[in-house]
Amino acid sequence: MSEREYPTALGASTKDTITLLGHDLADEVMGEVGFGELAFWLATQRRPAPGEVRVFEAVLAALADHGFTPTAIVARLTHLSAPDSVQGVLAAGLLGGGSRFLGVTEDCGRFLHRHLPDPPPHDDAGWDACALRIVRAQREAGRFVPGLGHHVHKDGDPRTRRLFTIAGEEGLLGPHLQLFAAIGRVHPEVLGKRLPLNGAGVCGAALADLGLPLELLRGFALLARTAGLIGQLAEELRSPVANEIFLSVDRHTGSVDPAPYRP
Amino acid sequence: MSEREYPTALGASTKDTITLLGHDLADEVMGEVGFGELAFWLATQRRPAPGEVRVFEAVLAALADHGFTPTAIVARLTHLSAPDSVQGVLAAGLLGGGSRFLGVTEDCGRFLHRHLPDPPPHDDAGWDACALRIVRAQREAGRFVPGLGHHVHKDGDPRTRRLFTIAGEEGLLGPHLQLFAAIGRVHPEVLGKRLPLNGAGVCGAALADLGLPLELLRGFALLARTAGLIGQLAEELRSPVANEIFLSVDRHTGSVDPAPYRP
Amino acid sequence: MSEREYPTALGASTKDTITLLGHDLADEVMGEVGFGELAFWLATQRRPAPGEVRVFEAVLAALADHGFTPTAIVARLTHLSAPDSVQGVLAAGLLGGGSRFLGVTEDCGRFLHRHLPDPPPHDDAGWDACALRIVRAQREAGRFVPGLGHHVHKDGDPRTRRLFTIAGEEGLLGPHLQLFAAIGRVHPEVLGKRLPLNGAGVCGAALADLGLPLELLRGFALLARTAGLIGQLAEELRSPVANEIFLSVDRHTGSVDPAPYRP
Amino acid sequence: MSEREYPTALGASTKDTITLLGHDLADEVMGEVGFGELAFWLATQRRPAPGEVRVFEAVLAALADHGFTPTAIVARLTHLSAPDSVQGVLAAGLLGGGSRFLGVTEDCGRFLHRHLPDPPPHDDAGWDACALRIVRAQREAGRFVPGLGHHVHKDGDPRTRRLFTIAGEEGLLGPHLQLFAAIGRVHPEVLGKRLPLNGAGVCGAALADLGLPLELLRGFALLARTAGLIGQLAEELRSPVANEIFLSVDRHTGSVDPAPYRP
Repeated sequence: MSEREYPTALGASTKDTITLLGHDLADEVMGEVGFGELAFWLATQRRPAPGEVRVFEAVLAALADHGFTPTAIVARLTHLSAPDSVQGVLAAGLLGGGSRFLGVTEDCGRFLHRHLPDPPPHDDAGWDACALRIVRAQREAGRFVPGLGHHVHKDGDPRTRRLFTIAGEEGLLGPHLQLFAAIGRVHPEVLGKRLPLNGAGVCGAALADLGLPLELLRGFALLARTAGLIGQLAEELRSPVANEIFLSVDRHTGSVDPAPYRP
Repeated sequence: MSEREYPTALGASTKDTITLLGHDLADEVMGEVGFGELAFWLATQRRPAPGEVRVFEAVLAALADHGFTPTAIVARLTHLSAPDSVQGVLAAGLLGGGSRFLGVTEDCGRFLHRHLPDPPPHDDAGWDACALRIVRAQREAGRFVPGLGHHVHKDGDPRTRRLFTIAGEEGLLGPHLQLFAAIGRVHPEVLGKRLPLNGAGVCGAALADLGLPLELLRGFALLARTAGLIGQLAEELRSPVANEIFLSVDRHTGSVDPAPYRP
Repeated sequence: MSEREYPTALGASTKDTITLLGHDLADEVMGEVGFGELAFWLATQRRPAPGEVRVFEAVLAALADHGFTPTAIVARLTHLSAPDSVQGVLAAGLLGGGSRFLGVTEDCGRFLHRHLPDPPPHDDAGWDACALRIVRAQREAGRFVPGLGHHVHKDGDPRTRRLFTIAGEEGLLGPHLQLFAAIGRVHPEVLGKRLPLNGAGVCGAALADLGLPLELLRGFALLARTAGLIGQLAEELRSPVANEIFLSVDRHTGSVDPAPYRP
Repeated sequence: MSEREYPTALGASTKDTITLLGHDLADEVMGEVGFGELAFWLATQRRPAPGEVRVFEAVLAALADHGFTPTAIVARLTHLSAPDSVQGVLAAGLLGGGSRFLGVTEDCGRFLHRHLPDPPPHDDAGWDACALRIVRAQREAGRFVPGLGHHVHKDGDPRTRRLFTIAGEEGLLGPHLQLFAAIGRVHPEVLGKRLPLNGAGVCGAALADLGLPLELLRGFALLARTAGLIGQLAEELRSPVANEIFLSVDRHTGSVDPAPYRP
């Protein structure tokens, strides 16, 4: 292998064979490996155990579609404007997957990882003490705790409860989820009110516990959302609303005088 | 519901519930529905049977990653240049999913659908007669048959054989796959040489047999590729090659005189 | 020059010099060449004359911004959702620049080019006869004439009149514009009603007369729109409306039962 | 105007008129306002003076194209892969306009703005004292000074010298450029070696002196690059190299064993 060779463990082929991740694509992957399992495997180059796949796919389900979010509206409007390019519709939708609407998953996973105690506590009391220090430090610094609070599900996000259950069933309640649960228990003592642990946050904790690369947590949210955007596009093709959304803006547009920028 | 309401059967939520496709997201979808199954369901608003999921996921596996394709190189170079935006990396990669590299799946599915005989033949001889007419008509019009031929797998594409096997095992050898198989049998009689039925084409036939929207066949290829691009990005983070690719181009760049455009 | 060299007449640099289009970038381009002029030059590798620049920049002005179009809404919503990435905002907006909202410019330029008579007529009567044949043929084929008609400016698009005037002042009323003008004169005889020649169409005719590559006409519309999208983003930063647009959709969303896809 | 109205000072139209920035588009903008001037006006809602336009367009020229950069390669590969979508080609190219390759302009403009002394010094000695404090503080914090250094133009970037000259000629040597010049004079005293002020950095300083929104400095680099990408695409259409670039990577690809991710 020369120094200029580009090595890869992903897809490769010769005249008679195609391999993916070191396995024969046709005989060992197709029909044998589910899509969520494959996505996990591609990202980590390690085949996940069935329990890991179940948790991972539960996360993807939680993040796939949240109705008429900005990303969904963007995808539908892009289809209205440029129906010739499915790839453009999906790409435009994904470009909204940034810091505000999809970023909590990544932010929460990274936050928990950065604050994991070493060695890990032996019991809930230990986790609670650790969580208390963290929440206090955030409050003193005037910063939010990622994953805490939700503007709609104020009394509890049903996805959070459910993902803890699933992870518990599969023996995958790792340190990120445990720290997140402890934050959920202790924060009222510091903040003076009870906030829900939100679904985007618990997804980040679960993905981190699965050992997925922290730099890619947003990527998994985007993968889930790609499936959701295809759903949005399919629904738009069947019963279009994008033109009505456009017109509802257009109807309420008003011309005003220019206002020079002041830095 | 007022006339200005935007209806959707996808994600929706109230203070205490979140639904997706008319089901409780937390209790009926998370932990219960695989990611491939969910993607199918989102696109069709119909829950697929297990055999349909297996065929669908086999297609996604076949299309997920083909190594250093232009889309993979684009994703890696975009990461090199703008590492701050995972969504930009994935979107840039998907934008290469157009007519040439990912289009065969859609083209083949649409082509077969347009030429399905009505009523369908009762036996292989009937399919062969139909396929013969189609291949002859294409040849006379000076057009290719989508899905026929491969620049590397000249003696047969292993994905094709395998996908026929899986579809057969699941009782899902529908009219699109049967017509495609017949084209594979009869075309040498017209073209004077034997070409392989390629993997991208058989994927289009299988997706069409699953009853998926033809307008979205390219979308499923893009969904598969999103998982592949995350794999590429993960590998790039672990053992980067994008800068070397860039430099290998840069080193061989030569300045020449401008050449005016002549229409 | 080895066979693997990548030649380019665009940007190039050595330790002490930077050239662009065969000229010294610092001393011969910066401060000497306007931006519209440079964009023309980059696309054609031919420096345009001042009159050509004036027509070209008039076209860019005509296409830069049309208010709250889908592309503008998309850019603002993407900023709402992912404010961390200016490049994502602009890219998402441009992805709406497809066949429907920005495509008329390209379609019209290509249509006129395909139907240019050879040799060109000597006078208006000759152009009218040619235009009459073309409009009749389109009508008989059940096809629209690109560039004819506007849903708002029914009595005439002010951009059209103006661009003809500017091109005339600069001696650049070429065959595409002349054929377009003739279509404007004769079509009522065939269609039984008078439709305006629209602004997007006349821009396509003018760009084609400037000798710009037909494959890139949409590209110039996108360049103009990039400036417009920066304007939209600047206004969104100063007086945000994207969240209100999102909420106005969100408020009117209604959950309905899934409706299975029927091909 | 109702509370749901979306105000804009950009494009607006009625049946008979089209306005842009409060002016009649056809009669007051088309043919009267250059494209660089219009882009400035759209971003600031203030019509620039001729000298401001000259400096602004000099910056756009400096940033338009730098040859086979990752963004140019990405655009060409995307065209190879999806030639059906010009908007996809440009969008993919722009997505590489992030923190690393186009970010210096924004970073430098923001950095200088944040460190502007108030009140501004009266003479070069005052600016030098200020610059010395800034460079020392950066060095002590172990941070680079944005805009200082270039991997190729080690003895001086010709764009920098030229842009200072142009700004001086137009009476637009504002505080950002003056501070940047002072950094260029004093840094060897702190760093022990002389580094060039690079072109991307001086562009950021000049844009900031023009009073352009700091949040949009990257946007102007992207606008310039859009023209450059159209040039790249035009050249690719005329003398294609993307397939050769792809093959040069493909030829040097080597399959290796998967390597599990370790956080």
